[in-house]
Amino acid sequence: GPLKEVLFFPTAITCVEHLYTPDPRINSPCPCPCPLPHGLETSFTRLLRHLLSAAASLDLCVFAFSSQELGRAVLLLQGRGVAVRVLTDRDYMRITGSQIGALRSAGICVRHEMGAVHMHHKFAVVDGRRLITGSLNWTLTAIQSNKENILVTEEPDLVLPFIGEFQQLWDANDPA
Amino acid sequence: GPLKEVLFFPTAITCVEHLYTPDPRINSPCPCPCPLPHGLETSFTRLLRHLLSAAASLDLCVFAFSSQELGRAVLLLQGRGVAVRVLTDRDYMRITGSQIGALRSAGICVRHEMGAVHMHHKFAVVDGRRLITGSLNWTLTAIQSNKENILVTEEPDLVLPFIGEFQQLWDANDPA
Ligand SMILES: [Zn+2]
Ligand SMILES: [Zn+2]
Repeated sequence: GPLKEVLFFPTAITCVEHLYTPDPRINSPCPCPCPLPHGLETSFTRLLRHLLSAAASLDLCVFAFSSQELGRAVLLLQGRGVAVRVLTDRDYMRITGSQIGALRSAGICVRHEMGAVHMHHKFAVVDGRRLITGSLNWTLTAIQSNKENILVTEEPDLVLPFIGEFQQLWDANDPA
Repeated sequence: GPLKEVLFFPTAITCVEHLYTPDPRINSPCPCPCPLPHGLETSFTRLLRHLLSAAASLDLCVFAFSSQELGRAVLLLQGRGVAVRVLTDRDYMRITGSQIGALRSAGICVRHEMGAVHMHHKFAVVDGRRLITGSLNWTLTAIQSNKENILVTEEPDLVLPFIGEFQQLWDANDPA
Protein backbone atom coordinates (compact mmCIF):
# COMPACT_ATOMS: atom_id res chain seq x y z
CA GLY A 1 0.00 0.00 0.00
CA PRO A 2 0.92 3.67 -0.08
CA LEU A 3 3.54 5.09 2.29
CA LYS A 4 2.47 5.25 5.95
CA GLU A 5 4.91 6.24 8.66
CA VAL A 6 4.58 7.60 12.20
CA LEU A 7 7.36 9.57 13.91
CA PHE A 8 7.49 10.49 17.58
CA PHE A 9 9.40 13.28 19.25
CA PRO A 10 11.47 14.44 21.09
CA THR A 11 14.23 13.21 18.86
CA ALA A 12 17.85 12.39 19.58
CA ILE A 13 20.15 15.18 18.44
CA THR A 14 22.46 13.96 15.71
CA CYS A 15 24.40 15.42 12.81
CA VAL A 16 22.20 16.01 9.75
CA GLU A 17 24.78 17.65 7.48
CA HIS A 18 24.83 14.71 5.08
CA LEU A 19 21.12 15.15 4.36
CA TYR A 20 21.63 18.59 2.83
CA THR A 21 24.27 17.34 0.38
CA PRO A 22 23.15 13.80 -0.35
CA ASP A 23 25.05 13.49 -3.63
CA PRO A 24 28.34 11.69 -2.77
CA ARG A 25 30.05 13.32 -5.76
CA ILE A 26 29.76 16.71 -4.09
CA ASN A 27 30.35 15.50 -0.55
CA SER A 28 33.70 16.24 0.96
CA PRO A 29 35.87 13.12 1.39
CA CYS A 30 36.67 14.35 4.92
CA PRO A 31 34.41 13.19 7.75
CA CYS A 32 32.23 15.84 9.38
CA PRO A 33 34.18 17.43 12.25
CA CYS A 34 31.13 18.39 14.34
CA PRO A 35 30.76 16.88 17.83
CA LEU A 36 27.29 15.38 17.30
CA PRO A 37 26.68 11.66 16.78
CA HIS A 38 26.86 10.65 13.10
CA GLY A 39 25.19 8.03 10.98
CA LEU A 40 22.05 7.64 13.08
CA GLU A 41 18.48 7.63 11.79
CA THR A 42 16.07 9.53 14.07
CA SER A 43 12.58 10.98 13.86
CA PHE A 44 14.18 14.26 12.81
CA THR A 45 16.34 12.76 10.05
CA ARG A 46 13.23 10.95 8.79
CA LEU A 47 11.30 14.24 8.75
CA LEU A 48 14.15 16.00 6.93
CA ARG A 49 14.39 13.19 4.36
CA HIS A 50 10.68 13.43 3.62
CA LEU A 51 10.90 17.20 3.17
CA LEU A 52 14.08 17.09 1.09
CA SER A 53 12.51 14.49 -1.19
CA ALA A 54 10.50 17.34 -2.75
CA ALA A 55 11.26 17.59 -6.47
CA ALA A 56 8.50 19.90 -7.69
CA SER A 57 6.60 21.56 -4.84
CA LEU A 58 6.36 22.05 -1.10
CA ASP A 59 3.20 23.49 0.45
CA LEU A 60 3.77 24.23 4.10
CA CYS A 61 1.07 25.27 6.57
CA VAL A 62 2.54 25.74 10.02
CA PHE A 63 1.58 27.73 13.11
CA ALA A 64 5.12 28.39 14.40
CA PHE A 65 8.33 28.13 12.38
CA SER A 66 11.61 28.88 14.15
CA SER A 67 13.73 25.76 13.62
CA GLN A 68 16.95 26.77 11.86
CA GLU A 69 17.47 23.27 10.46
CA LEU A 70 13.98 23.18 8.95
CA GLY A 71 14.47 26.72 7.62
CA ARG A 72 17.68 25.58 5.97
CA ALA A 73 15.84 22.64 4.38
CA VAL A 74 13.14 24.89 2.94
CA LEU A 75 15.73 27.36 1.60
CA LEU A 76 17.65 24.48 0.03
CA LEU A 77 14.51 23.30 -1.76
CA GLN A 78 13.83 26.83 -2.97
CA GLY A 79 17.41 26.97 -4.30
CA ARG A 80 16.80 23.74 -6.20
CA GLY A 81 13.83 25.26 -7.97
CA VAL A 82 11.12 23.57 -5.92
CA ALA A 83 7.96 25.72 -5.82
CA VAL A 84 7.59 26.56 -2.12
CA ARG A 85 4.49 28.13 -0.57
CA VAL A 86 4.29 28.88 3.15
CA LEU A 87 1.13 29.66 5.16
CA THR A 88 1.62 30.68 8.76
CA ASP A 89 -0.03 32.32 11.75
CA ARG A 90 0.02 36.10 11.90
CA ASP A 91 0.80 36.38 15.61
CA TYR A 92 3.50 33.71 15.60
CA MET A 93 5.34 35.04 12.54
CA ARG A 94 7.58 37.15 14.76
CA ILE A 95 8.46 34.63 17.49
CA THR A 96 12.10 34.48 18.56
CA GLY A 97 14.18 32.96 15.79
CA SER A 98 11.31 32.98 13.33
CA GLN A 99 12.43 31.70 9.95
CA ILE A 100 9.70 33.56 8.08
CA GLY A 101 11.81 36.65 7.41
CA ALA A 102 14.65 34.58 5.96
CA LEU A 103 12.23 32.68 3.74
CA ARG A 104 10.72 35.90 2.42
CA SER A 105 14.17 37.39 1.84
CA ALA A 106 14.99 34.36 -0.29
CA GLY A 107 11.94 35.03 -2.45
CA ILE A 108 9.65 32.39 -0.99
CA CYS A 109 5.98 33.31 -1.10
CA VAL A 110 4.64 33.49 2.47
CA ARG A 111 1.06 34.24 3.43
CA HIS A 112 -0.34 34.53 6.93
CA GLU A 113 -3.78 34.05 8.38
CA MET A 114 -5.51 37.40 7.95
CA GLY A 115 -8.49 36.79 10.20
CA ALA A 116 -8.66 37.17 13.98
CA VAL A 117 -8.20 33.43 14.52
CA HIS A 118 -5.16 31.21 14.84
CA MET A 119 -3.92 29.16 11.92
CA HIS A 120 -3.02 26.19 14.10
CA HIS A 121 -2.27 23.57 11.42
CA LYS A 122 1.11 21.88 11.27
CA PHE A 123 1.22 20.11 7.93
CA ALA A 124 3.17 19.98 4.70
CA VAL A 125 2.40 18.46 1.31
CA VAL A 126 5.40 17.35 -0.76
CA ASP A 127 5.00 17.17 -4.54
CA GLY A 128 1.21 17.18 -4.19
CA ARG A 129 1.45 13.60 -3.00
CA ARG A 130 3.10 13.11 0.37
CA LEU A 131 1.39 14.47 3.50
CA ILE A 132 3.35 15.28 6.66
CA THR A 133 1.01 16.24 9.53
CA GLY A 134 0.78 16.07 13.30
CA SER A 135 1.20 17.96 16.54
CA LEU A 136 4.74 19.20 15.86
CA ASN A 137 5.33 22.89 15.32
CA TRP A 138 8.53 23.70 13.46
CA THR A 139 10.40 24.85 16.56
CA LEU A 140 13.47 23.53 18.34
CA THR A 141 11.47 22.96 21.54
CA ALA A 142 8.95 20.81 19.70
CA ILE A 143 11.68 18.76 18.02
CA GLN A 144 14.06 18.33 20.94
CA SER A 145 11.89 18.56 24.07
CA ASN A 146 8.16 18.03 23.68
CA LYS A 147 6.20 14.83 23.32
CA GLU A 148 5.00 15.19 19.72
CA ASN A 149 3.89 13.14 16.74
CA ILE A 150 4.09 13.33 12.98
CA LEU A 151 2.33 11.11 10.53
CA VAL A 152 3.58 10.76 6.95
CA THR A 153 1.39 9.21 4.29
CA GLU A 154 0.73 9.08 0.57
CA GLU A 155 -2.75 7.61 1.08
CA PRO A 156 -4.88 9.70 -1.33
CA ASP A 157 -7.96 9.66 0.95
CA LEU A 158 -5.87 11.43 3.59
CA VAL A 159 -3.67 13.61 1.36
CA LEU A 160 -6.30 15.10 -0.94
CA PRO A 161 -8.37 16.83 1.79
CA PHE A 162 -5.21 18.56 3.05
CA ILE A 163 -4.36 19.72 -0.49
CA GLY A 164 -7.84 21.21 -0.70
CA GLU A 165 -7.51 22.86 2.72
CA PHE A 166 -4.16 24.39 1.77
CA GLN A 167 -5.49 25.84 -1.48
CA GLN A 168 -8.57 27.24 0.23
CA LEU A 169 -6.53 28.93 2.97
CA TRP A 170 -3.97 30.14 0.43
CA ASP A 171 -6.69 31.79 -1.66
CA ALA A 172 -8.52 33.16 1.38
CA ASN A 173 -5.37 34.88 2.66
CA ASP A 174 -4.26 36.51 -0.57
CA PRO A 175 -3.08 39.97 0.50
CA ALA A 176 -3.61 41.41 -3.00
CA GLY B 1 -9.86 -0.32 2.93
CA PRO B 2 -9.87 0.68 6.59
CA LEU B 3 -11.59 3.87 7.74
CA LYS B 4 -9.86 7.10 6.70
CA GLU B 5 -11.45 10.47 7.33
CA VAL B 6 -10.15 14.04 7.57
CA LEU B 7 -12.01 16.78 9.47
CA PHE B 8 -11.23 20.48 9.34
CA PHE B 9 -12.06 23.16 11.86
CA PRO B 10 -13.41 25.65 12.85
CA THR B 11 -16.75 23.94 12.81
CA ALA B 12 -20.26 25.31 12.52
CA ILE B 13 -21.99 25.42 15.90
CA THR B 14 -24.99 23.13 15.93
CA CYS B 15 -27.02 21.19 18.44
CA VAL B 16 -25.36 17.91 19.44
CA GLU B 17 -27.85 16.77 22.09
CA HIS B 18 -29.06 13.85 19.99
CA LEU B 19 -25.54 12.37 19.93
CA TYR B 20 -25.48 11.82 23.68
CA THR B 21 -28.75 9.88 23.65
CA PRO B 22 -28.67 8.11 20.29
CA ASP B 23 -31.17 5.41 21.20
CA PRO B 24 -34.56 6.61 19.86
CA ARG B 25 -36.36 4.56 22.54
CA ILE B 26 -34.95 6.83 25.22
CA ASN B 27 -35.14 10.05 23.22
CA SER B 28 -37.85 12.43 24.12
CA PRO B 29 -40.60 12.67 21.49
CA CYS B 30 -40.43 16.46 21.86
CA PRO B 31 -38.05 18.35 19.56
CA CYS B 32 -35.04 19.96 21.23
CA PRO B 33 -35.97 23.49 22.28
CA CYS B 34 -32.44 24.94 22.07
CA PRO B 35 -31.82 27.80 19.61
CA LEU B 36 -28.95 26.11 17.71
CA PRO B 37 -29.37 24.63 14.22
CA HIS B 38 -30.49 20.99 14.30
CA GLY B 39 -29.91 17.96 12.13
CA LEU B 40 -26.62 19.11 10.61
CA GLU B 41 -23.46 17.02 10.30
CA THR B 42 -20.27 19.02 11.01
CA SER B 43 -16.64 18.31 11.79
CA PHE B 44 -17.57 18.45 15.46
CA THR B 45 -20.50 16.04 15.21
CA ARG B 46 -18.21 13.68 13.28
CA LEU B 47 -15.58 13.93 16.03
CA LEU B 48 -18.21 13.30 18.71
CA ARG B 49 -19.60 10.30 16.82
CA HIS B 50 -16.13 8.75 16.58
CA LEU B 51 -15.53 9.25 20.30
CA LEU B 52 -18.96 8.04 21.34
CA SER B 53 -18.50 4.90 19.24
CA ALA B 54 -16.20 3.59 21.99
CA ALA B 55 -17.55 0.32 23.39
CA ALA B 56 -14.58 -0.96 25.41
CA SER B 57 -11.85 1.66 25.83
CA LEU B 58 -10.80 5.25 25.20
CA ASP B 59 -7.16 6.26 25.55
CA LEU B 60 -6.86 10.02 25.35
CA CYS B 61 -3.57 11.93 25.16
CA VAL B 62 -4.23 15.65 24.89
CA PHE B 63 -2.27 18.79 25.74
CA ALA B 64 -5.24 21.01 26.65
CA PHE B 65 -8.74 19.79 27.57
CA SER B 66 -11.34 22.44 28.40
CA SER B 67 -14.21 21.74 26.00
CA GLN B 68 -17.36 21.08 28.02
CA GLU B 69 -18.95 19.09 25.22
CA LEU B 70 -15.95 16.79 24.92
CA GLY B 71 -15.79 16.48 28.70
CA ARG B 72 -19.43 15.45 28.67
CA ALA B 73 -18.70 12.82 26.01
CA VAL B 74 -15.84 11.33 28.02
CA LEU B 75 -17.97 11.25 31.20
CA LEU B 76 -20.78 9.57 29.27
CA LEU B 77 -18.39 6.86 28.08
CA GLN B 78 -17.12 6.36 31.61
CA GLY B 79 -20.72 6.01 32.78
CA ARG B 80 -21.29 3.34 30.14
CA GLY B 81 -18.43 1.30 31.54
CA VAL B 82 -15.87 2.18 28.85
CA ALA B 83 -12.30 2.01 30.27
CA VAL B 84 -11.08 5.61 29.96
CA ARG B 85 -7.45 6.69 30.46
CA VAL B 86 -6.39 10.32 30.09
CA LEU B 87 -2.85 11.63 29.68
CA THR B 88 -2.38 15.38 29.73
CA ASP B 89 0.12 18.18 30.13
CA ARG B 90 1.02 19.21 33.66
CA ASP B 91 1.03 22.95 33.02
CA TYR B 92 -2.19 22.98 31.03
CA MET B 93 -4.18 20.83 33.46
CA ARG B 94 -5.38 23.96 35.23
CA ILE B 95 -6.35 26.18 32.29
CA THR B 96 -9.65 28.02 32.52
CA GLY B 97 -12.50 25.57 32.25
CA SER B 98 -10.22 22.54 32.42
CA GLN B 99 -12.21 19.32 32.37
CA ILE B 100 -9.50 17.33 34.13
CA GLY B 101 -10.91 17.91 37.64
CA ALA B 102 -14.38 16.77 36.59
CA LEU B 103 -12.94 13.64 34.97
CA ARG B 104 -10.97 12.78 38.10
CA SER B 105 -14.02 13.41 40.30
CA ALA B 106 -15.91 10.90 38.18
CA GLY B 107 -13.24 8.30 38.85
CA ILE B 108 -11.42 8.51 35.53
CA CYS B 109 -7.73 7.72 35.76
CA VAL B 110 -5.76 10.80 34.68
CA ARG B 111 -1.98 11.03 34.45
CA HIS B 112 0.06 14.06 33.49
CA GLU B 113 3.49 14.50 31.99
CA MET B 114 5.86 14.45 34.96
CA GLY B 115 8.97 15.70 33.21
CA ALA B 116 9.93 19.30 32.49
CA VAL B 117 8.68 19.07 28.90
CA HIS B 118 5.31 19.59 27.28
CA MET B 119 3.09 16.66 26.40
CA HIS B 120 1.91 18.25 23.15
CA HIS B 121 0.09 15.30 21.57
CA LYS B 122 -3.58 15.59 20.65
CA PHE B 123 -4.71 12.06 19.92
CA ALA B 124 -7.20 9.46 21.05
CA VAL B 125 -7.47 5.74 20.42
CA VAL B 126 -10.97 4.26 20.50
CA ASP B 127 -11.33 0.55 21.32
CA GLY B 128 -7.65 -0.03 20.51
CA ARG B 129 -8.53 0.33 16.86
CA ARG B 130 -9.59 3.80 15.77
CA LEU B 131 -7.05 6.64 15.86
CA ILE B 132 -8.14 10.28 16.11
CA THR B 133 -5.16 12.64 15.79
CA GLY B 134 -4.27 16.11 14.54
CA SER B 135 -3.61 19.69 15.52
CA LEU B 136 -6.80 20.18 17.51
CA ASN B 137 -6.60 20.67 21.25
CA TRP B 138 -9.79 19.86 23.14
CA THR B 139 -10.73 23.50 23.70
CA LEU B 140 -13.62 25.63 22.54
CA THR B 141 -11.28 28.03 20.74
CA ALA B 142 -9.73 25.20 18.75
CA ILE B 143 -13.13 23.80 17.80
CA GLN B 144 -14.98 27.02 17.03
CA SER B 145 -12.28 29.51 15.98
CA ASN B 146 -8.92 28.11 14.90
CA LYS B 147 -7.89 26.58 11.61
CA GLU B 148 -7.32 22.98 12.72
CA ASN B 149 -7.33 19.44 11.41
CA ILE B 150 -8.16 15.97 12.67
CA LEU B 151 -7.48 12.73 10.92
CA VAL B 152 -9.41 9.57 11.81
CA THR B 153 -8.19 6.19 10.68
CA GLU B 154 -8.28 2.48 11.45
CA GLU B 155 -5.22 1.78 9.29
CA PRO B 156 -3.12 -0.51 11.54
CA ASP B 157 0.21 0.88 10.29
CA LEU B 158 -0.86 4.27 11.63
CA VAL B 159 -2.84 3.21 14.71
CA LEU B 160 -0.40 0.73 16.27
CA PRO B 161 2.49 3.20 16.75
CA PHE B 162 0.14 5.55 18.62
CA ILE B 163 -1.05 2.69 20.85
CA GLY B 164 2.59 1.99 21.66
CA GLU B 165 3.31 5.66 22.34
CA PHE B 166 0.31 5.92 24.67
CA GLN B 167 1.33 2.88 26.68
CA GLN B 168 4.92 4.08 26.96
CA LEU B 169 3.88 7.54 28.17
CA TRP B 170 1.27 6.02 30.50
CA ASP B 171 3.88 3.79 32.13
CA ALA B 172 6.51 6.54 32.25
CA ASN B 173 4.16 8.90 34.07
CA ASP B 174 2.90 6.50 36.72
CA PRO B 175 2.82 8.59 39.91
CA ALA B 176 3.04 5.49 42.11
ZN1 LIG C 1 28.57 16.35 11.86
ZN1 LIG D 1 -30.94 21.50 20.37
